[in-house]
Amino acid sequence: MNAGSNTLRVGVIGYGYWGPNLVRNFAESENTAITMIADLSAARLALAERRFPGVRTTHSATEVVTDSRVDVVAIATPVDTHFELGMQVLRAGKHLWLEKPMTETADQARILADEAERRGLVCYVDHTFVYTSAVRKIGDIMRSGDLGKLYYYDSTRINLGLFQHDVNVIADLGVHDFAILDYLMQEQPEAVSASGVNHFPGTPENLAHLTLYYGSGMLAHINVSWLSPVKVRQVLLSGSKQMIVYDDLLPSEKLKVYDSGVNFTEDPVEVQRLRVSYRTGDMWAPRLDETEALRVAVDHFADCVRTTTSPLTDAQLGVRIVELIEASNQSMRERGRCVPVGRPVVRT
Amino acid sequence: MNAGSNTLRVGVIGYGYWGPNLVRNFAESENTAITMIADLSAARLALAERRFPGVRTTHSATEVVTDSRVDVVAIATPVDTHFELGMQVLRAGKHLWLEKPMTETADQARILADEAERRGLVCYVDHTFVYTSAVRKIGDIMRSGDLGKLYYYDSTRINLGLFQHDVNVIADLGVHDFAILDYLMQEQPEAVSASGVNHFPGTPENLAHLTLYYGSGMLAHINVSWLSPVKVRQVLLSGSKQMIVYDDLLPSEKLKVYDSGVNFTEDPVEVQRLRVSYRTGDMWAPRLDETEALRVAVDHFADCVRTTTSPLTDAQLGVRIVELIEASNQSMRERGRCVPVGRPVVRT
Amino acid sequence: MNAGSNTLRVGVIGYGYWGPNLVRNFAESENTAITMIADLSAARLALAERRFPGVRTTHSATEVVTDSRVDVVAIATPVDTHFELGMQVLRAGKHLWLEKPMTETADQARILADEAERRGLVCYVDHTFVYTSAVRKIGDIMRSGDLGKLYYYDSTRINLGLFQHDVNVIADLGVHDFAILDYLMQEQPEAVSASGVNHFPGTPENLAHLTLYYGSGMLAHINVSWLSPVKVRQVLLSGSKQMIVYDDLLPSEKLKVYDSGVNFTEDPVEVQRLRVSYRTGDMWAPRLDETEALRVAVDHFADCVRTTTSPLTDAQLGVRIVELIEASNQSMRERGRCVPVGRPVVRT
Amino acid sequence: MNAGSNTLRVGVIGYGYWGPNLVRNFAESENTAITMIADLSAARLALAERRFPGVRTTHSATEVVTDSRVDVVAIATPVDTHFELGMQVLRAGKHLWLEKPMTETADQARILADEAERRGLVCYVDHTFVYTSAVRKIGDIMRSGDLGKLYYYDSTRINLGLFQHDVNVIADLGVHDFAILDYLMQEQPEAVSASGVNHFPGTPENLAHLTLYYGSGMLAHINVSWLSPVKVRQVLLSGSKQMIVYDDLLPSEKLKVYDSGVNFTEDPVEVQRLRVSYRTGDMWAPRLDETEALRVAVDHFADCVRTTTSPLTDAQLGVRIVELIEASNQSMRERGRCVPVGRPVVRT
Repeated sequence: MNAGSNTLRVGVIGYGYWGPNLVRNFAESENTAITMIADLSAARLALAERRFPGVRTTHSATEVVTDSRVDVVAIATPVDTHFELGMQVLRAGKHLWLEKPMTETADQARILADEAERRGLVCYVDHTFVYTSAVRKIGDIMRSGDLGKLYYYDSTRINLGLFQHDVNVIADLGVHDFAILDYLMQEQPEAVSASGVNHFPGTPENLAHLTLYYGSGMLAHINVSWLSPVKVRQVLLSGSKQMIVYDDLLPSEKLKVYDSGVNFTEDPVEVQRLRVSYRTGDMWAPRLDETEALRVAVDHFADCVRTTTSPLTDAQLGVRIVELIEASNQSMRERGRCVPVGRPVVRT
Repeated sequence: MNAGSNTLRVGVIGYGYWGPNLVRNFAESENTAITMIADLSAARLALAERRFPGVRTTHSATEVVTDSRVDVVAIATPVDTHFELGMQVLRAGKHLWLEKPMTETADQARILADEAERRGLVCYVDHTFVYTSAVRKIGDIMRSGDLGKLYYYDSTRINLGLFQHDVNVIADLGVHDFAILDYLMQEQPEAVSASGVNHFPGTPENLAHLTLYYGSGMLAHINVSWLSPVKVRQVLLSGSKQMIVYDDLLPSEKLKVYDSGVNFTEDPVEVQRLRVSYRTGDMWAPRLDETEALRVAVDHFADCVRTTTSPLTDAQLGVRIVELIEASNQSMRERGRCVPVGRPVVRT
Repeated sequence: MNAGSNTLRVGVIGYGYWGPNLVRNFAESENTAITMIADLSAARLALAERRFPGVRTTHSATEVVTDSRVDVVAIATPVDTHFELGMQVLRAGKHLWLEKPMTETADQARILADEAERRGLVCYVDHTFVYTSAVRKIGDIMRSGDLGKLYYYDSTRINLGLFQHDVNVIADLGVHDFAILDYLMQEQPEAVSASGVNHFPGTPENLAHLTLYYGSGMLAHINVSWLSPVKVRQVLLSGSKQMIVYDDLLPSEKLKVYDSGVNFTEDPVEVQRLRVSYRTGDMWAPRLDETEALRVAVDHFADCVRTTTSPLTDAQLGVRIVELIEASNQSMRERGRCVPVGRPVVRT
Repeated sequence: MNAGSNTLRVGVIGYGYWGPNLVRNFAESENTAITMIADLSAARLALAERRFPGVRTTHSATEVVTDSRVDVVAIATPVDTHFELGMQVLRAGKHLWLEKPMTETADQARILADEAERRGLVCYVDHTFVYTSAVRKIGDIMRSGDLGKLYYYDSTRINLGLFQHDVNVIADLGVHDFAILDYLMQEQPEAVSASGVNHFPGTPENLAHLTLYYGSGMLAHINVSWLSPVKVRQVLLSGSKQMIVYDDLLPSEKLKVYDSGVNFTEDPVEVQRLRVSYRTGDMWAPRLDETEALRVAVDHFADCVRTTTSPLTDAQLGVRIVELIEASNQSMRERGRCVPVGRPVVRT
């Protein structure tokens, strides 16, 4: 871990569920090095020491933030600490890596985003899915025009377990689709209708269904659950020319592109009869780069810090996603009432 | 086709998509015989004659209804003809087999149900799924108490093609789940929130997502689409003790029962931490009877006619399902607003 | 069933397991019509009459062979009757459709083939797999050169049940691969090594593994079993440029073509190290025609009869396959000793 | 890495493909600690240092063997070095962990086994599959009698790539089944018939099919390949009462137990007809322990060293497996001729 002069020295706060993945990737990348790890739990720190004998550990987040040998701070703690810790890091003049979701409230997210911008610091929000080769390939196909007009996006992220106590299943799993949609679409959703339930009193919702309405007519649906007997990570995208099935659990052929679709006739003679017919064609599974997405993200972050440019998943994206979470929760409380989303903007 | 004295002589009106399945099963069952087939299309009648050289054919539905050698009439025509044809059959004093959905409107369905009851005639509505060995086995498991309290029901029925022009995807595919839920649950849904879209102007909705709210807290979700690159027919049921995956496309092991679930602690010491933990156990796939569901239905219908008893899928069930379709369509038009369902009743 | 002057009038002998499929296809094709059905079992004939009310039935095979209203005879009886019945048909001057395998012994097959040739009659042997769109597509890919040099063919045909009492599992299932290989390859196998076992005394072998050696170095392996908990119908073909997986049980995407393979270096510098590296590329699943293979075969047969040309699966192919069965059985009895195959010939 | 007095201090020779897995498990187990790592490649040692900053590294195997702070030596080098390095370790009076296969020749394996026994040292051969929860569960089911008499064992281990240059595919992949069979069966195979091919001149066989004959009539078949477009790791076991499918690539439900089988009648009345019928019953997928098999093996090894007892996969098992490799290679060279296996012994 002899960091060269260009090597970013990273301090990580939080060595729980996701922290070890961060640390491993910061350690293995040639652009970054792990300098310090903080966690409240002695057991977690002991584990970190076993795996990374040379690294310094501490119970104090502040120690990491203020240490002069730490260039950037990554925060992988419960979401209710993100705002305060994030602000500390920015005030210490350091670049910030924040686990998702960015903050508990959209107001907090906006303040954090403003602070980073004011200080000229990079604020990266870790919506890792945007860095997967599968999502990037879907983006390529959409931008090439091969898919045609997108009709719908339908995602299922369900499995048994890993109940969270600080966030509900939307903030845990649904945000993956919020980020993917933000990356793929040229427009923001206008409104959301959500239904969900917490089956156990006093716990966050463990199952939810969301429908996002877009101005173009595109409909996105997201099904997330911690209470499913089977694990599914599947997204369907249907365009006017092609259709895509993205199954993230497959070891290979995660992406299947179908030359299938629907033909629509406005021929008045046909109007009385079936006006829509379907065609099935070949299927194609493009080869995907197998680099771990988190490694791609780490290198992208290091590059952004070096050049002080805005990351793909910047604070503004983080804000939009927290706004979507808030609108979804509002709709869920009102049994599906359609709730407008934050500040709908068509990107230019 | 020498029908014995106990053999029900069946006239079938409509030999399009589903009619041939009806005819085949009425022909092969020892309890029924096909006497007459009506269809407006000469080509369809020619096909029927090729396959069943002895059968009489006609373009006139009325001829079937009034023929003295026809004991019961099965109607497999577009839904907008169901009410009128059904009333004709009942007025002719004959028992009635109606394809699903029962009628276009709930009002029509109620009139038809009343007419059948008044005349003491059997009115069977063909929600075939209730007669599958898989659904009956799920019912057995639920009634045995092994599943525990049902937390949710989540169904996906999607595929490419078979766009209907007379009904939308809810009335085409969603009704399967409405019928299964009616069969499995001891309660009716209170309200429904639905989102959906017709991607082609002037056609019925081809994609929809429905959430049904039950008084007990059970949540049912139904995803139906004619615009999916892959065909899926899957239902997940999660109970407090066991979980079930029902995949209707598998040639065997359609039903998988998981001894898995969630443990919930109200221990005050644990309240600050994770209050919900999961357990995974063995999986079990019961052997299922392989008799075609439609054959089971045909024999059940013949039995009901002989004994003038009410079928499992009677006119009252048909009414409830049309009411659910109406509420779903209403909610869909209002982008997910929660719409109360017809006359919510807890069965006693 | 008003057969036009060009319609071939077919008599079918044997209405057991496979006969009904023959009858259904001969009945539904516009090129053929069913005139007569023979079976020893009264129950089977009753079933035939129920399904095809107009057809004549008989217990006498001879009656079918000699009937003047029968142009061609299809034989779907146990294999030990094929030779005698087939000779009867040819001697009556009628074209012959024989179920597979052609005969019990290669000697019988050769006599039958000679008889048909001498009389100028069509002798079709029903190796149906050659008429599937999947096998024809594989043939197209191989002939196009896209696959490159074929390294191996590896087939698995296993399932539980359908134990035969007159033939072993090689003559039942292995022949499918013998026929497919005969169709795909430009060469015949030189020798075969087989292992197999009958787990139940006095019954034919119910499980076998065969290796076919080809002069080109190509190796074919065939795994057949009636004693497997799962049903598999899968063939792998690996070429120097592409690889194919053919899964016959999939409802769609039966054929997957991989732009993957192996690169081999003779670079002397690399000789000390790994000389073979692999590359993985895109995958492609061509759309396949969905016409039932047996229907394709029936129409091909009718065409051959009309034009007195030799069918794709003619008596010579039937002979080669019975020779392969004999060699395989010989090797199996000697625990895998490599047995030369009949008269290895390179086709020109 | 402060090893307690009971902690075994391990030196690992070879940090190539498998070595890192060994090191990781020796490091994370509480019973062992990594003291030293040797590899000829500077790049591999650099990687080891990055991951385990505290560990000593060297290019010299001898240094590891002779170091006084090393209690046991694990060898993960190419197989042609196993004998010499293994003898060095034993002569230094140290316990030995050897990667599979044990040695190049059976003679070497026997000498090594004798040396270990003479010196009272533990010689563990790393046939890891024996320590998987799936294989142990299969063993439990077989010993309980639930499976009945075992009819056959059929294994498929195929994938694309990882061509070895020092061993052929039998010694690479086939040995997994040799070890599993040795663990499961109460008898040794009598003879083997093998076919295989090296598609690239000057390289070891990359594809092979093996049939093992057992005195009890049990037949084992093993299909191994480095040249398959798809990756498969599947074993079928069929008994007289139950059948098992073991799919090692599934994330869950790796083991499926079918209450299915075959009924055999010797009833003389039935003799003329089908004598074998099948039954299909429920399926059951037992929950499996998810501990990594290599960790189980490491702890078992540490326990054997502490108590100087013989490991489950001891030198004798290693010898038997090298004997099987030799017989298989002999048969493969003779195109499937049945070759007797070493010294067939029924265990008592």
